[in-house]
Amino acid sequence: MNQIQSINYPIYFNSVTTHLNNFINEGKYSRFFILTDEHTSTHCLPYIREKLNNRDDFDLIEINAGEESKTIDFCIGIWKMLIDFDADRSSLLINLGGGVVTDLGGFAASTFKRGIDFIHIPTTLLSQVDASVGGKTGIDIDNLKNIIGTFTQPKAVFIEHAFLSTLPARQVKSGMAEMLKHGLIADASYWNVLKISDLENPTDQLIYQSVVIKNKVVTEDPSERGIRKILNFGHTIGHALESYSLDNDSNPLTHGEAIAAGMICEAYLSHLKAGLPAGDMQEIVDTLLGVYGKYPIHESCYTALNAIMKKDKKNQGGKINCSLLTKIGECRIDNICTDDELCDSLKYYASLQYAQV
Amino acid sequence: MNQIQSINYPIYFNSVTTHLNNFINEGKYSRFFILTDEHTSTHCLPYIREKLNNRDDFDLIEINAGEESKTIDFCIGIWKMLIDFDADRSSLLINLGGGVVTDLGGFAASTFKRGIDFIHIPTTLLSQVDASVGGKTGIDIDNLKNIIGTFTQPKAVFIEHAFLSTLPARQVKSGMAEMLKHGLIADASYWNVLKISDLENPTDQLIYQSVVIKNKVVTEDPSERGIRKILNFGHTIGHALESYSLDNDSNPLTHGEAIAAGMICEAYLSHLKAGLPAGDMQEIVDTLLGVYGKYPIHESCYTALNAIMKKDKKNQGGKINCSLLTKIGECRIDNICTDDELCDSLKYYASLQYAQV
Ligand SMILES: NC(=O)c1ccc[n+]([C@@H]2O[C@H](COP(=O)([O-])OP(=O)(O)OC[C@H]3O[C@@H](n4cnc5c(N)ncnc54)[C@H](O)[C@@H]3O)[C@@H](O)[C@H]2O)c1
Ligand SMILES: NC(=O)c1ccc[n+]([C@@H]2O[C@H](COP(=O)([O-])OP(=O)(O)OC[C@H]3O[C@@H](n4cnc5c(N)ncnc54)[C@H](O)[C@@H]3O)[C@@H](O)[C@H]2O)c1
Ligand SMILES: [Zn+2]
Ligand SMILES: [Zn+2]
Repeated sequence: MNQIQSINYPIYFNSVTTHLNNFINEGKYSRFFILTDEHTSTHCLPYIREKLNNRDDFDLIEINAGEESKTIDFCIGIWKMLIDFDADRSSLLINLGGGVVTDLGGFAASTFKRGIDFIHIPTTLLSQVDASVGGKTGIDIDNLKNIIGTFTQPKAVFIEHAFLSTLPARQVKSGMAEMLKHGLIADASYWNVLKISDLENPTDQLIYQSVVIKNKVVTEDPSERGIRKILNFGHTIGHALESYSLDNDSNPLTHGEAIAAGMICEAYLSHLKAGLPAGDMQEIVDTLLGVYGKYPIHESCYTALNAIMKKDKKNQGGKINCSLLTKIGECRIDNICTDDELCDSLKYYASLQYAQV
Repeated sequence: MNQIQSINYPIYFNSVTTHLNNFINEGKYSRFFILTDEHTSTHCLPYIREKLNNRDDFDLIEINAGEESKTIDFCIGIWKMLIDFDADRSSLLINLGGGVVTDLGGFAASTFKRGIDFIHIPTTLLSQVDASVGGKTGIDIDNLKNIIGTFTQPKAVFIEHAFLSTLPARQVKSGMAEMLKHGLIADASYWNVLKISDLENPTDQLIYQSVVIKNKVVTEDPSERGIRKILNFGHTIGHALESYSLDNDSNPLTHGEAIAAGMICEAYLSHLKAGLPAGDMQEIVDTLLGVYGKYPIHESCYTALNAIMKKDKKNQGGKINCSLLTKIGECRIDNICTDDELCDSLKYYASLQYAQV
């Protein structure tokens, strides 16, 4: 429970001391750079510095925290700093942060001088169990999430439980949504354990299991031609809600909160179109509402949400494509959903009885 | 002499009618888009339209002509137009133009929705014998050439001699510099034929031979770890001159003109450091000056040029790396050159007796 093999790279658990030092010192790299955001500079960089014996032969690049930084402007900023620091092709970029840092840093590295090596040290639960594994890099344009990016694998991923101690509870819950998703799409017994565990303090074992599930799926289908699409369960509607909220709310939804609402809508669609039993649907709805509460979706937003979904990367030929559950623990890809069906699922969500978040 | 196989894709010669239609119609693509610049819209698009039986089920994206367009701003413009046109992952981008269009279009496509397919229809001699083959995509930042990019292969390349009829003579000569380079680095007998042929009207046969040489090298080493670097002969100094000229001259050097001057300097370095016989060096200098004339490099620019070379992508650990000739037809990679040596080669160039361009 200390290492998993992914697509040509290792994922290490709680062993940054040995393995990160070996990695940097093995002689492959002329230089290294660490990318952080303002929060991970404070909360995570000291830990890494200490593990690296306080060496200071690297340059630091810091971005603002939050999804607002996952833009081409910040990417250009990183490129220019790498240029100013004279980064060459054998430089290494270490992305130390949540999914924003790993997605943006991965994209910047994969295109700098046509690609330099990078590694991820994910510091949020979400990035540990999801964003750092699988080689998707990306930035947003005009709030279209990840519309630009590459498939480029990191050279290693280091998952350290220690970072979760400073992570706000809301961020832990955000990552938990992806863990719950992993159970729903691939492993009913994992779901059964998860749903009754302490969701604000995930154990090493639960994190490890989530990474195993995510890794298995992406290793089978690195460039998302088929099976990998099961990871999109909850994300067609979830991403639309996330974009919408980012544009309209002063305190926007986290990724996980948006995906949790998306999973409820798509559980409804799963019941409607993919045979998900009513009891399973109810169990999913109760669990997710219990953890995440309810986001107020007004009828007036349906058109806007639908317009966002129309721009979803996963669509083909103008058709909106969902991954839906056939039962808890099993997911089917490529379900075309009509605008009416999608709208009905939003109405279903809006009709649920629960105190608003 | 009608098709060559490259890294998983075909290069077709003068057979756009059959093969482009087959390609588009084979059913793989939901939509296609054509990227042009203002000149290729006028001179090349009508030809392609006609070959496509005047179908109009595609959208056109046009950029300004010239290297000034090979920027992240124009790239963002292309991304946004693809978004506006609702391009999905099974869209195809057809890059119809010179190296600016193929480099920029290739980069935009390789990162849009983490990569959509693209093909190149190169319309300058330079892009036919060089830029369109080998999978390098790229954009410039602050006049640092191709500092951002990916290695992504097109799905096909279509080389049509017809386009050369409208190409200004200066542009033909620009492409010819790469053909001469191909002879110098890999094929002495090709060089011997080339140097006495009509360099303003290259035959189909000569173009074909150049593509064969370029293609052989890139197929052996797609991501430029070794042998592919021979293609950089003339380019360490040539790129610096090109950047410098773009910044300082009202009528900047073409790529080929810059590379021709770079090849003279690097022939000097080849003689100094790699055993290129004096007679070979003289033959190269005479031929290139005869075709391209001489660019005035003043002593005051040496420092600026050196600073640009220091930012060259090909450097490792701060050392400037050149590919040098051991004799005509043979090239050796990874020659570290000192600042003094590079400066001497510029002085050598400056000392040559020839009427200024
Ligand atoms: N590439 C993929 O496959 C993939 C998968 C899922 C999500 N994502 C992307 O990930 C992003 C969301 O990731 P996220 O939720 O990690 O967001 P994030 O990177 O914005 O991190 C959330 C917040 O936590 C802070 N933070 C990070 N680590 C901390 C720590 N240890 N202690 C205290 N604060 C800390 C950050 O500064 C930020 O304010 C989205 O952009 C999403 O698109 C990518
Ligand atoms: N990717 C690679 O491997 C590679 C290799 C070599 C060069 N390049 C790049 O290629 C670029 C230079 O390419 P280029 O010289 O083709 O420049 P270009 O694309 O700017 O074309 C030169 C000019 O010719 C015009 N033009 C193009 N086709 C025409 C036609 N048939 N008739 C009339 N006018 C026409 C263009 O509009 C432009 O004004 C540089 O950016 C260089 O970095 C890339
Ligand atoms: Zn997600
Ligand atoms: Zn060139």
